[in-house]
Amino acid sequence: MNQEHVQQLEAAIQAVAQRKVTNFYFVACGGSLANVTPAQYILDREIEIPSAAYSSNEFIHRSPKALGPSSVVITCSHSGNTPETVAATTFAREKGALTICLTNLVDSPLWEAAEFKLHYNYAPYGEALRGEETSMAILYRLVFGILQTLYPNEKYANAISSIENGLHGVYERNKALTLEAAKAFGRNYKREKLIYTMASGINYSVAYSFAICLLQEMQWIHSSAIHAGEYFHGPFEITDFDVPFIVIKGLGETRPLDDRAYDFCVKYSDKTILIDAETFDLEGISPDVRPYFTNLVAGVVLRQYAQHLSEETGHALSVRRYMWKMEY
Amino acid sequence: MNQEHVQQLEAAIQAVAQRKVTNFYFVACGGSLANVTPAQYILDREIEIPSAAYSSNEFIHRSPKALGPSSVVITCSHSGNTPETVAATTFAREKGALTICLTNLVDSPLWEAAEFKLHYNYAPYGEALRGEETSMAILYRLVFGILQTLYPNEKYANAISSIENGLHGVYERNKALTLEAAKAFGRNYKREKLIYTMASGINYSVAYSFAICLLQEMQWIHSSAIHAGEYFHGPFEITDFDVPFIVIKGLGETRPLDDRAYDFCVKYSDKTILIDAETFDLEGISPDVRPYFTNLVAGVVLRQYAQHLSEETGHALSVRRYMWKMEY
Repeated sequence: MNQEHVQQLEAAIQAVAQRKVTNFYFVACGGSLANVTPAQYILDREIEIPSAAYSSNEFIHRSPKALGPSSVVITCSHSGNTPETVAATTFAREKGALTICLTNLVDSPLWEAAEFKLHYNYAPYGEALRGEETSMAILYRLVFGILQTLYPNEKYANAISSIENGLHGVYERNKALTLEAAKAFGRNYKREKLIYTMASGINYSVAYSFAICLLQEMQWIHSSAIHAGEYFHGPFEITDFDVPFIVIKGLGETRPLDDRAYDFCVKYSDKTILIDAETFDLEGISPDVRPYFTNLVAGVVLRQYAQHLSEETGHALSVRRYMWKMEY
Repeated sequence: MNQEHVQQLEAAIQAVAQRKVTNFYFVACGGSLANVTPAQYILDREIEIPSAAYSSNEFIHRSPKALGPSSVVITCSHSGNTPETVAATTFAREKGALTICLTNLVDSPLWEAAEFKLHYNYAPYGEALRGEETSMAILYRLVFGILQTLYPNEKYANAISSIENGLHGVYERNKALTLEAAKAFGRNYKREKLIYTMASGINYSVAYSFAICLLQEMQWIHSSAIHAGEYFHGPFEITDFDVPFIVIKGLGETRPLDDRAYDFCVKYSDKTILIDAETFDLEGISPDVRPYFTNLVAGVVLRQYAQHLSEETGHALSVRRYMWKMEY
């Protein structure tokens, strides 16, 4: 790991350890919100201190009563310029909360707004990038670092070591493993006007991110992320032979929800696409924390699916009609 | 208010008051989850004790670490038979939590599973039903009753009095006020294959419920509930002149999010349908709590929209192809 990243993480983790924390808030917008939400899932399962995830503007306007000097607020914006997330960070800091930001851009408005600052690396699709320096790796390193400091435990040490030593190889190997499937997805689904996504537990936010960022935003394809447990209480009635669903199956505790949703979906939709964490090569990720890493791998795998969909539709993932082009 | 309901509520509220509560969980599936989620919003804004809402099976399998004897778990199932919600109630009770259920069916499995039981009334669309005896009224009466007992305050007393004395008239008057708009919606949108919904804050769950229950489940129309703040971070790129959006504008703290989303949406979609709480007749609801009641009225208004959509599509709201017809 890059020494600058290590020092930034250490400073943030020590600051958290020195407070009597009563709640954690994860706050961001869109794809960045999807990125930070898995950390809330991990805390929800691991510790009794409450945590919650909010879209930045909802956080500010809702103004949770419990937000205050004993809160830790973790915000994320790739550009460091998302106005709502910068405002949410300032808002939280004014309330006395400990603020930690993640961003790709040092010295950005978000960087200035937060008390503790974590930089992560990024590279355009296909260019070299170390897995342990990505946004998700830095976030996980922060969260497991906080857990390990507050409640030392072999599992948390294993998670940290998995990020630092295993994640990069896992990303590369699973991209290679799923390349042909990604190409087939692009060929077979390029005419679709709507593709649903479905998942549960820690993977739900990957389904959300694929629906709102890759499909709606970058391909102008209609979508909705359906929670695999909620599917049976309304959405499943929309299932038909020609309605496409991407179903993500995780590992561990919430997999039974994914299994059930997939089993139903594949029976009635001829266009059910399965992303199954059981088929991932997770060598290098400690077995006791693998369920917490499936979403990271599913995200990388699906990013490749989007790439090949885009190549087949001829609609580049970089094309926008509104975003960054006007005031809104 | 029905004396049986009053006694059930009083018993549940006193039980909560006698515990040192460290967290509240609201747990249900589909439309019932959408129903209970606004209570989480109210607690989030009003008190420092943390609260969260989960789909029942996610709750069980995620198994939040903080769930225990100092938790209050409020579950809801209309039929009282939803297996996941019955299981979630049993799961919570086994963990020592105080369990309170809401259901239309006395002596149902859910009724048996929970320690405290709240019955609510229901009537098919168009038949007589007292507003203060509906599921939302009983839930709100519970939540404001808990708040008033723990933190006595004129606002909470006003909310309780609004439910008991104002809600029924508000429902009836707003149904009458929006009848022509509901008919026009049915006529104008009967050919649509996809209709998005959008809202924020306490109204988000109305958008969710309309998307998954009324549109997907009961009309087989594709849909997704978009959070008005998230709209600008992905979903808005799908906006086009012929893409329908139902936008709900609330009152109070999160209305700026709704205003912004509506202003953008109406500029680029010729099919933007506005449900605006500012046009509701809220006489009888105390002004200091009106933002917390807009979702109840929006729900009743949209139920009427669905009715008239159904009359125009010829697809009765009672038709199902999978639900209750097979094992799943």
